[in-house]
Amino acid sequence: MTFKPADPDFEARVRDSFSRQSFMTTIGAELVHVGPGEAVVRVPYREDLCQQHGLFHGGLIGTIADNAAGYASYSLMPPRNSVLTVEYKLNLMSPALGEALISRALVARAGRRITVCHADVYAVSDGVEKLCATALGTFMTLENTSDHSLGSRAA
Amino acid sequence: MTFKPADPDFEARVRDSFSRQSFMTTIGAELVHVGPGEAVVRVPYREDLCQQHGLFHGGLIGTIADNAAGYASYSLMPPRNSVLTVEYKLNLMSPALGEALISRALVARAGRRITVCHADVYAVSDGVEKLCATALGTFMTLENTSDHSLGSRAA
Amino acid sequence: MTFKPADPDFEARVRDSFSRQSFMTTIGAELVHVGPGEAVVRVPYREDLCQQHGLFHGGLIGTIADNAAGYASYSLMPPRNSVLTVEYKLNLMSPALGEALISRALVARAGRRITVCHADVYAVSDGVEKLCATALGTFMTLENTSDHSLGSRAA
Amino acid sequence: MTFKPADPDFEARVRDSFSRQSFMTTIGAELVHVGPGEAVVRVPYREDLCQQHGLFHGGLIGTIADNAAGYASYSLMPPRNSVLTVEYKLNLMSPALGEALISRALVARAGRRITVCHADVYAVSDGVEKLCATALGTFMTLENTSDHSLGSRAA
Repeated sequence: MTFKPADPDFEARVRDSFSRQSFMTTIGAELVHVGPGEAVVRVPYREDLCQQHGLFHGGLIGTIADNAAGYASYSLMPPRNSVLTVEYKLNLMSPALGEALISRALVARAGRRITVCHADVYAVSDGVEKLCATALGTFMTLENTSDHSLGSRAA
Repeated sequence: MTFKPADPDFEARVRDSFSRQSFMTTIGAELVHVGPGEAVVRVPYREDLCQQHGLFHGGLIGTIADNAAGYASYSLMPPRNSVLTVEYKLNLMSPALGEALISRALVARAGRRITVCHADVYAVSDGVEKLCATALGTFMTLENTSDHSLGSRAA
Repeated sequence: MTFKPADPDFEARVRDSFSRQSFMTTIGAELVHVGPGEAVVRVPYREDLCQQHGLFHGGLIGTIADNAAGYASYSLMPPRNSVLTVEYKLNLMSPALGEALISRALVARAGRRITVCHADVYAVSDGVEKLCATALGTFMTLENTSDHSLGSRAA
Repeated sequence: MTFKPADPDFEARVRDSFSRQSFMTTIGAELVHVGPGEAVVRVPYREDLCQQHGLFHGGLIGTIADNAAGYASYSLMPPRNSVLTVEYKLNLMSPALGEALISRALVARAGRRITVCHADVYAVSDGVEKLCATALGTFMTLENTSDHSLGSRAA
């Protein structure tokens, strides 16, 4: 599916928002790519991001699935709006072992108020990506709400 | 609902597993309570755990919802088993603003192989808890699999 | 939690909407109860509502979980609005065997635009209710949209 | 993704199971196609399958999403096993209006015990398919459990 962005400067807007999320810095996440209705987030392996077996922690997988899907959704919204995660669901499918995690998100449907987005998460081992999780989420457009102001999840 | 744990030493086992998750140390999470079929995880506010508006990041909310639910489920499993998150779904309901986040998980049904668990997440502001998210997840018992060995999400 | 309905005549409005759903008649579903933020739907056993083992079909369980949750949410909305299911998630937990299925829904949070609602589904056998499924769903308020006009899931 | 079925006679096995679901007959559903890791279910429009606006009822959409996904998963299982829906999540995206509903399911990952499967649901209007819903579900293999015996959701 191809999407036409409402805002030609969507990439700068998305990158600016991502850069203001301190938690992304804490976990070392990078916004690798953003296109109309798509986003890719990457986290290199670190020993302090693990669960009890030395695999990437599931919370980290959920974090970048939600984040990539949220920014894929945000890429299609008009400039004066901001984005809110309403909910998401995540299936963990295989061990998240390797030198990096990559989340690739793609919008399934962008409505005026509600956007539905898929995200697949891959563990990269010796450069080979293996699917380790898949997510499906719902995102809401907050009209006339700057991404710089205090957002409300109250919706 | 009251549950009878299969392992009288469940608390030590759960706390040991939690303590080996490096990501919990990274985010400053504490396992505040564990009972039969229940667990409570708390994360104090830090500036490096936020999204773009200075609220707790949604990924952090998902992380402690999944973690509290996973350990609530694990508390009911026999000693030689370990636990795997199959999937979870999270609804974000109101702004996660305050001095701490608390996730309270309670098992809905514990089967031999599959456990279903709810978790509510509260933002604590001036000591008052406000519900900010709710999750519903599915956890699997890995039989005869030490929580100290490399777990597999392959199931 | 107690809710104060925006519309004192919510019950008549909910019952009217339910009565216009032909699929509820087809499956023999009855709206047993509706209160502020809550609804109960019941389906008596019939041989033509089953899966391959003579249990209630999972699709029927999902149908009444969604329906009870949707009407629990609708009960709190102002009179000129209608309700839309954005999404739901359903965990099937034990065999749905017995003389009836009952879905009990309770709103977790009612926002201006988004309502989040839980529904538990019970199989009734010899008058005893046993929890067989649990759902968590998201419902949207369509402002100034009559429930009698053609609704749009486009949102 | 291509899958190699464990049972060369998977199609006969899947069709036999589908044919024993009385609820599929009640709603007029047909198993249009089954391949390794995929299944398609179709329901023609009937006036008694609707919600309050004359659209296909959401419960029907969930029913065939779950069913197509369950049988796509079952197609990959060894012959002496049966399949159980653990849970699914469904996003409703646009009005389900037209002469038929079609659900197309595709397995994302088939493990020994757990299979994860996507299903997209389309409304067919004048022969044109429009995406109206998407689902993501988890299915369990019940080993050495005939699909003809009383299945248990107890897992």
